[in-house]
Amino acid sequence: MSIVYLIGAGPGDPGLITVRGLQCLASADVVLYDHLVNPRLLRHAGPDAEKIDLGVAAPQANEQEAICYLLAEKAREGKVVARLKWGDPFVFDTGGAEGLFLHEQGVRFEVVPGVPAGVAVPSYAGIPVTYPGGGDTLTFIRGHEDEGKTQVSVDWKSLARLDGTVVCYAGPDQLPRILSALVAHGRPVEDSAAVVYDGTLPTQQTLVGTLDDI
Amino acid sequence: MSIVYLIGAGPGDPGLITVRGLQCLASADVVLYDHLVNPRLLRHAGPDAEKIDLGVAAPQANEQEAICYLLAEKAREGKVVARLKWGDPFVFDTGGAEGLFLHEQGVRFEVVPGVPAGVAVPSYAGIPVTYPGGGDTLTFIRGHEDEGKTQVSVDWKSLARLDGTVVCYAGPDQLPRILSALVAHGRPVEDSAAVVYDGTLPTQQTLVGTLDDI
Repeated sequence: MSIVYLIGAGPGDPGLITVRGLQCLASADVVLYDHLVNPRLLRHAGPDAEKIDLGVAAPQANEQEAICYLLAEKAREGKVVARLKWGDPFVFDTGGAEGLFLHEQGVRFEVVPGVPAGVAVPSYAGIPVTYPGGGDTLTFIRGHEDEGKTQVSVDWKSLARLDGTVVCYAGPDQLPRILSALVAHGRPVEDSAAVVYDGTLPTQQTLVGTLDDI
Repeated sequence: MSIVYLIGAGPGDPGLITVRGLQCLASADVVLYDHLVNPRLLRHAGPDAEKIDLGVAAPQANEQEAICYLLAEKAREGKVVARLKWGDPFVFDTGGAEGLFLHEQGVRFEVVPGVPAGVAVPSYAGIPVTYPGGGDTLTFIRGHEDEGKTQVSVDWKSLARLDGTVVCYAGPDQLPRILSALVAHGRPVEDSAAVVYDGTLPTQQTLVGTLDDI
């Protein structure tokens, strides 16, 4: 029976996919995967499964529409479709838009949550995102434009006043702007900060410092 | 070689443990598990593994200290120890304290991230925690006292002003206080809200409404 699985593949280490996610992947006739999904996961697809590289990290609106139609089309051909996504499908990703589209089109689908990058990447860097002595909030922020958004809108003043951990989904280009905004709105410059590249992969690099020297 | 694995077992559905987490569990000589971990996961432990129910959802400080010493003791006996935790070890859990303790004691350990409840539970309820048209922040808040904390401290005014999704880790007792605080500090009463019980389990129940009628 045809279905689309929107699967969170985790942030890099192929061992971070869930058992359920791996089962759905292994059962698929067609696998569509994002640029950031670890290619080693594709070994778990069946030998006859069609594999489609969507070739994008953050699809533009027109590309996203094409992906949605492709998912629906493959399901209408009677196929089991696995859509592999970086991290979790609903955390700063297009899972919400794809799920809504499939629902409107009457295509059966299931969301398989994944370990979000904002949780696993600090963990692999040895950083507990919450701690008994720390704050009682944990905030993820979108650091770059995607999902068809042209501008990120964050209330930096309010964010700076929450005393818990802030995890930014951002590339090196966005980093100076984010750090400046947090400090300008009152987050203490001596607060600990870390920058992690290639999180959870063998190539992971971690820089540790404070908000003003990192 | 002895080691302690601090493993995120996910929030309920046993299929949400990661492949890496399951491998570590299967390799363990001793399994220590929290009250909220799905008991079906214990089937994946080896037949000769010692299984210890820690019997607590949120350990008090003295219980937590005993757990830390138990982990270190079992590792010093040369054993592979799997510590199964609800959700993710570092998200409003005691993974940070246990990791620091093991580090100070010179005991080798590894943190295996898990799918946090704050991500998987809304997902199973059909709620995308981020969406292209929504806010650019996602905040988890600790809704009840644990990890030895006697009082939760959240800057409600700042939290209410962030326009992204807020996910509260809370029981029914804490709910009225949290909803009132958000509305009192300016979050619109017509904002969508949901309450999910037994998230990701077959017994899951979801109520959907707005901040003032839920």
